[in-house]
Amino acid sequence: MNSVFIIGAHGQIGQILVHKLVKKGFEVFAGIRNTEQAKVFPTDELVHPVHFDLNDSVEEMAKCFRQTGADAIVFSAGSGGKTGDDQTLIIDLDGAVKSMEAAQKARIKRYVMVSSVGSNKPDLWDESGLKPYLIAKHYADKELQQTKLDYTILRPGMLKNSSGTGTITVNPEREERISIPREDVAETIATVVGNQSTIRKSYTIGSGNTPIPKAF
Amino acid sequence: MNSVFIIGAHGQIGQILVHKLVKKGFEVFAGIRNTEQAKVFPTDELVHPVHFDLNDSVEEMAKCFRQTGADAIVFSAGSGGKTGDDQTLIIDLDGAVKSMEAAQKARIKRYVMVSSVGSNKPDLWDESGLKPYLIAKHYADKELQQTKLDYTILRPGMLKNSSGTGTITVNPEREERISIPREDVAETIATVVGNQSTIRKSYTIGSGNTPIPKAF
Repeated sequence: MNSVFIIGAHGQIGQILVHKLVKKGFEVFAGIRNTEQAKVFPTDELVHPVHFDLNDSVEEMAKCFRQTGADAIVFSAGSGGKTGDDQTLIIDLDGAVKSMEAAQKARIKRYVMVSSVGSNKPDLWDESGLKPYLIAKHYADKELQQTKLDYTILRPGMLKNSSGTGTITVNPEREERISIPREDVAETIATVVGNQSTIRKSYTIGSGNTPIPKAF
Repeated sequence: MNSVFIIGAHGQIGQILVHKLVKKGFEVFAGIRNTEQAKVFPTDELVHPVHFDLNDSVEEMAKCFRQTGADAIVFSAGSGGKTGDDQTLIIDLDGAVKSMEAAQKARIKRYVMVSSVGSNKPDLWDESGLKPYLIAKHYADKELQQTKLDYTILRPGMLKNSSGTGTITVNPEREERISIPREDVAETIATVVGNQSTIRKSYTIGSGNTPIPKAF
């Protein structure tokens, strides 16, 4: 595992993830929708901004993946809270599933999905205030679990912008109010992407006391 | 095949379907969200209005299906064009998939899905003006195809309110501009529900020249 393609590299988690991966010695292909977005990335020989759009076809995505020769894909994109639920369907569900198909076409087996706490708990949706988003994430996760990809699904709690602590909790008994700094999510992704024991597994993660490398 | 449960019986196709099924001698369980809606159905000993809500849990739906003892389920519900895409996710995708799970729990194998032309043609979505809806229908259909249900998927063209002609076209070569009266869709559902040769198959249907009973 030497190189990682990030879908949503310009996102809040994505930007931190670029740094984390570079620090660990990975070559990073940072998927962005327009060249302007490349400005935010560190100037480093390991970082390659690449045009990538979840509105593109599976074939276009596969071509992009193939050209990079990346060993793994991380999906950390999201339509975001400011757009309508049309984008939730287009990006979080359909865009995600297309990227899975493209990964398979490009023969990249390793795929890490950033999902959300609650996406696997339909009973909690009505009270979440995020039901449409959680439905989209639920079915995207379900599609991923039906592929033959070497996937890992991470379901972080409510995302915070505070500094990372380097420690988390995995699969807590009560999930309702868990939260986690985005930096700890990024560190977790950078840790699991090369960890074979996390393949075909899903984890809910929140702030906690376990050092990230020991949590998996 | 003696009885049919209609999800969305108060919808435009659903209301016509109740009549068509009764005419063919089926007992009909007409799923409705509130008792007021029962008014539109014919007073007939074969017609039983039943409370049913796609916002309910899989367990509640299964209980409802089980109590009726219906032999088949028809999904002709839709969030409709007047609601937001949150309802597209909640009704057309998640509601539909929950009803499939409930059908399996209630051991009702026969399931006819009213989908939409284009739901299986992602290349046409951008130009359709209905992309979010077609994404929801696409993934609902895909989920259905992954169940062990005896499903039939019908993908009607643009729905019209004109009178039915009793004739249709199935799987036309060009799908872009096909349309079909709702009455012909209802007649098609009433025809295929008891037709074993349509099990685990999907059909795009539009106005045409083939008498409906001969089209399958």
